[in-house]
Amino acid sequence: MLKVGIMGASGYAGEELLRILIKHPGVKITALAAKIDTTPIYKLYPWLKGMLDLECGDMKAEELAEKCDCVFLGLPHKVSMGFAPVFLKKGKKVIDLSADFRLRDVGVYEKWYVKHECPEYIKKAVYGLPELYRDEVKKADLIANPGCYPTSIILGCAPLLKERFVDTEYIVCDSKSGVSGAGRVPTQALMFTELQNSFRAYKANEHRHMPEIDQELSCVSGKKIEVNFTPHLVPMERGILSTIYLKLKKEISEKKALELYNDFYKNEYFVRVMGEGVYPDTKNVVRQNFCDIGVRVFPERSMAIVTTAIDNLVKGASGQAVQNMNIMYGLKENMGL
Amino acid sequence: MLKVGIMGASGYAGEELLRILIKHPGVKITALAAKIDTTPIYKLYPWLKGMLDLECGDMKAEELAEKCDCVFLGLPHKVSMGFAPVFLKKGKKVIDLSADFRLRDVGVYEKWYVKHECPEYIKKAVYGLPELYRDEVKKADLIANPGCYPTSIILGCAPLLKERFVDTEYIVCDSKSGVSGAGRVPTQALMFTELQNSFRAYKANEHRHMPEIDQELSCVSGKKIEVNFTPHLVPMERGILSTIYLKLKKEISEKKALELYNDFYKNEYFVRVMGEGVYPDTKNVVRQNFCDIGVRVFPERSMAIVTTAIDNLVKGASGQAVQNMNIMYGLKENMGL
Amino acid sequence: MLKVGIMGASGYAGEELLRILIKHPGVKITALAAKIDTTPIYKLYPWLKGMLDLECGDMKAEELAEKCDCVFLGLPHKVSMGFAPVFLKKGKKVIDLSADFRLRDVGVYEKWYVKHECPEYIKKAVYGLPELYRDEVKKADLIANPGCYPTSIILGCAPLLKERFVDTEYIVCDSKSGVSGAGRVPTQALMFTELQNSFRAYKANEHRHMPEIDQELSCVSGKKIEVNFTPHLVPMERGILSTIYLKLKKEISEKKALELYNDFYKNEYFVRVMGEGVYPDTKNVVRQNFCDIGVRVFPERSMAIVTTAIDNLVKGASGQAVQNMNIMYGLKENMGL
Amino acid sequence: MLKVGIMGASGYAGEELLRILIKHPGVKITALAAKIDTTPIYKLYPWLKGMLDLECGDMKAEELAEKCDCVFLGLPHKVSMGFAPVFLKKGKKVIDLSADFRLRDVGVYEKWYVKHECPEYIKKAVYGLPELYRDEVKKADLIANPGCYPTSIILGCAPLLKERFVDTEYIVCDSKSGVSGAGRVPTQALMFTELQNSFRAYKANEHRHMPEIDQELSCVSGKKIEVNFTPHLVPMERGILSTIYLKLKKEISEKKALELYNDFYKNEYFVRVMGEGVYPDTKNVVRQNFCDIGVRVFPERSMAIVTTAIDNLVKGASGQAVQNMNIMYGLKENMGL
Repeated sequence: MLKVGIMGASGYAGEELLRILIKHPGVKITALAAKIDTTPIYKLYPWLKGMLDLECGDMKAEELAEKCDCVFLGLPHKVSMGFAPVFLKKGKKVIDLSADFRLRDVGVYEKWYVKHECPEYIKKAVYGLPELYRDEVKKADLIANPGCYPTSIILGCAPLLKERFVDTEYIVCDSKSGVSGAGRVPTQALMFTELQNSFRAYKANEHRHMPEIDQELSCVSGKKIEVNFTPHLVPMERGILSTIYLKLKKEISEKKALELYNDFYKNEYFVRVMGEGVYPDTKNVVRQNFCDIGVRVFPERSMAIVTTAIDNLVKGASGQAVQNMNIMYGLKENMGL
Repeated sequence: MLKVGIMGASGYAGEELLRILIKHPGVKITALAAKIDTTPIYKLYPWLKGMLDLECGDMKAEELAEKCDCVFLGLPHKVSMGFAPVFLKKGKKVIDLSADFRLRDVGVYEKWYVKHECPEYIKKAVYGLPELYRDEVKKADLIANPGCYPTSIILGCAPLLKERFVDTEYIVCDSKSGVSGAGRVPTQALMFTELQNSFRAYKANEHRHMPEIDQELSCVSGKKIEVNFTPHLVPMERGILSTIYLKLKKEISEKKALELYNDFYKNEYFVRVMGEGVYPDTKNVVRQNFCDIGVRVFPERSMAIVTTAIDNLVKGASGQAVQNMNIMYGLKENMGL
Repeated sequence: MLKVGIMGASGYAGEELLRILIKHPGVKITALAAKIDTTPIYKLYPWLKGMLDLECGDMKAEELAEKCDCVFLGLPHKVSMGFAPVFLKKGKKVIDLSADFRLRDVGVYEKWYVKHECPEYIKKAVYGLPELYRDEVKKADLIANPGCYPTSIILGCAPLLKERFVDTEYIVCDSKSGVSGAGRVPTQALMFTELQNSFRAYKANEHRHMPEIDQELSCVSGKKIEVNFTPHLVPMERGILSTIYLKLKKEISEKKALELYNDFYKNEYFVRVMGEGVYPDTKNVVRQNFCDIGVRVFPERSMAIVTTAIDNLVKGASGQAVQNMNIMYGLKENMGL
Repeated sequence: MLKVGIMGASGYAGEELLRILIKHPGVKITALAAKIDTTPIYKLYPWLKGMLDLECGDMKAEELAEKCDCVFLGLPHKVSMGFAPVFLKKGKKVIDLSADFRLRDVGVYEKWYVKHECPEYIKKAVYGLPELYRDEVKKADLIANPGCYPTSIILGCAPLLKERFVDTEYIVCDSKSGVSGAGRVPTQALMFTELQNSFRAYKANEHRHMPEIDQELSCVSGKKIEVNFTPHLVPMERGILSTIYLKLKKEISEKKALELYNDFYKNEYFVRVMGEGVYPDTKNVVRQNFCDIGVRVFPERSMAIVTTAIDNLVKGASGQAVQNMNIMYGLKENMGL
């Protein structure tokens, strides 16, 4: 039985890790830490009452390390990079849900975030998108778990990009996220009354997930890509839908494109390519680790419109983290998911 | 006091017309028709109880014509074209909320809809977007009230298109609509339980509003335009947000672009250009006739991202219809709105 | 044109006052105050952009008094009582939306709230429920505008209580409120993500509106009443539904009870008694000043179940305040509502 | 591996059975039937794509019986009673989610529903509320799975009723249900646009779950009970909260009452008694089989107010059905739940 701990258990990613791990047949949750006064975890999450008898509090990293084999970091960026090395030095495996080790170029990281405190660890980290990097994940000690928007966009673009069908000059990624993506810190903008009838864009071409998307799409396509990326907030709890507009430079029919996607993902349990003319819907992936992909091609316009749906807290965060854990420890990839 | 009637009072556009007209100081609602058994209107819309003492039923067009000066048609396409001539021949003014008279080229209409029964009326109709066609609206007897998606997109594109800043080859319009846009006929897909956690695209590049958008953007820009248009359904009652990606072929800064928009709409009460860096939000236009526009420009990418917000039932339908009525009858344009 | 000001314009009651007053044909909004840095009001409420050109800031009461005839106080309890006398001494009329002047017995006030600073004003205040106290409202200088829950419950009970049909020993009031009732201060409990799937009771028999309900029902019935009152939070923006269980000590049929209600409210524009077997629905009173009442009687059980629906921000707060203003100034009672 | 089938897989209870059973480690779903054209089940429920490779169609009961050991009936009342005997005669165990075998007195059933076709089976059926009837469930071949409202009310009342604290003359049960409780057949009243801002009561003292509540509370208390029961519809997908007002005829403190509840349910995994002053919230039981109970007592009023929360589709239907199955087959009671 694998012993796992969560550092940063008081945010939505931490809560979702608990929801998944508590029913995972291969693990035992042995330690929970968060910057709060020590309290039984069910006081923080009343839905856990009777299910998990563990305290959560401001535990030291060293102490938490003693109690587990694998540590999930559900911390804000900048905080994660302070803790990851502590665990790694003690021989623990770390799955970091923050952005701290996702960007391979420390300069890009520092441009979008803050000064990096341990850049030497960046190259040890594996970008934890199993559909692209499964072999590296198997051997990794430090996983940089992908961002929610990037997951939805990279999986949607990869097949057409890899096969060089896309004019990479002008990619449009229009993403829409449920509100849990904005985190658990209360602000007026996130109140129920402010959001129930609200739909809006924010941070067009200025969101921190953009360099992560650019990095991975560039890797896949072999050329430098800069996407246009506009995130939006949807009045629902969970789910991301990304609508991706890809201008095509080589001809392909919708049928052939679907074959390409089905073939590309033929061994992937967690990617489901929709049938002809079917659009993914966030409701079909809620609380699941799937990424649903719909592909439409308009040859007369040289345009592909790809839509993808994930649960931002699952395939976009904690579910993918557990998928990575399963791979790292040789468990069945979909165990507990 | 202007006497107005509504044909097709049992749909959402009809209901919204009632909501607006009942408080409009310049009109009196004198007749209501719908394909239902005759009933006091408050039985259909309980919120009207005590406010309007009128029956609604399967009244003949001729009979309804007797009772009013101006008729709103809140009917499905194809049904409208059968009634409009009846009223026009009796010297009534008609504001048609369907698509029947919006497309100037009858061939385009027949490709996307059905055979047109009275194509001779198409050229008599004025496309009722006052911000572009106010002078024509003033003199019109038959208004083709614009579609909801087209309104949000045309107003968002017009200034940059008119001034030829846009590479018209590749325009992306990604629109998101509240559920009332899907109408009032019950289907399983529109049930509350199916939609609360649902976000999805539908009819990418196949929605009937697309030829209408193409027609008007072509008019504004002076060249044939074919946009890429993907509508989405948002789990909220009202509101459309359109995110429009315009590739720029001439340089312009964000500041200059905002000036351009402010100048273009300087006499328009119902268009509000947001300040620098501010994104429109559907909640700010709910139950109002405004179109809010936010403009972001990324010169280093030659890209403008314009977002617009309207209430699909107001500026996207019934509010705009009343705005047109106000103009046609020389009332203050924002009276009752 | 009546000049009105709002002190405490930054809460939901203040916002709703703006929504109503801005279209009210008999008033001009001349001053806005709130404990914030001075800012154009549309920055606080973007939906107001283009509609009201006024600043809002930390204006002194004396200064605000100079600018208006009638002042609305949208302040928290305890704060109101400090300001009301300032305005009254300057001959202004005051409509106070807080609880500070609602409870006639200062001892009861101080038990449930805090020490009262100006108890001498309590007896000058009129409890602003026009359906019960219209004559007093006409002559009042200081209105204690009723609470939202009390409005929904008092109007629902009054006819049966007044006519002594009710066993007053055991009244159950089970109320459900939309989230805006909880105010505009952000807390984790009020975040969208926490509330979308949440329904819960709170403060059973401990809510501060309970003594207000007891006071008014005791007045109506002529004997001391203590209700059982459980409020609940509903995942919607607006609306209160109260379900009231009245044990009957005299026989009455449902038909007769409906007649009693219709008769009791026959001159009341804002009270709508539903037809036989019809249940009020909050959606029918959203953004309106109506109170809808449904009456069911089960003679074989000696039980009446009355349900009432109001918009907590309108008939439950700002709409009722404007109704009171209309009465105080001899305007048509439903003007602007 | 237990082989299970679902008859009536196309409703919400059937869908929820699939959600639970597909991850249940002790069963294999072997047959699905519904009154639809035969289709892969993932076409009906797209979220199942890739998870279950089974067809669903208008299969005969006899045919379905061949394929499984245990049959769940997710059918409307009246339809269930036609099928249950078929399976029972073939030696299969049946868990019926309809009302057909819940009411022990066939006269009561026929008063509230329709003529019963196989009354001889009623006495063979066990009312499947394990917290009250676990021993009977163990030996049962036919389970009458309780209604959603009754489950929430019976569990909330049982301890105080059993110990004779309650004046049984006047019990008030005010229940609020998420929309999935209204089923999956589309009607205008259940459309998203109609419900998002809607809260209303319906069928006060006329709901078919009332005789079921009366029957079980009478059993528990040993005297004939007739409750007052008002159900309401809440604009959320899942969850029931019941607020129960119990007049006390014997004194008890809140502390003692909590002890009583904790003791009564001390061996029940699926009942969670909240701590002092804590109110259950539907969000904490969503997609879980728990019933959360909060107890408040007001000795000076001789009043207890009990609130209970369940997921109407889980503990209120399919989860409880699986709990019953686990008990019947000697599996761990919370397996797969």
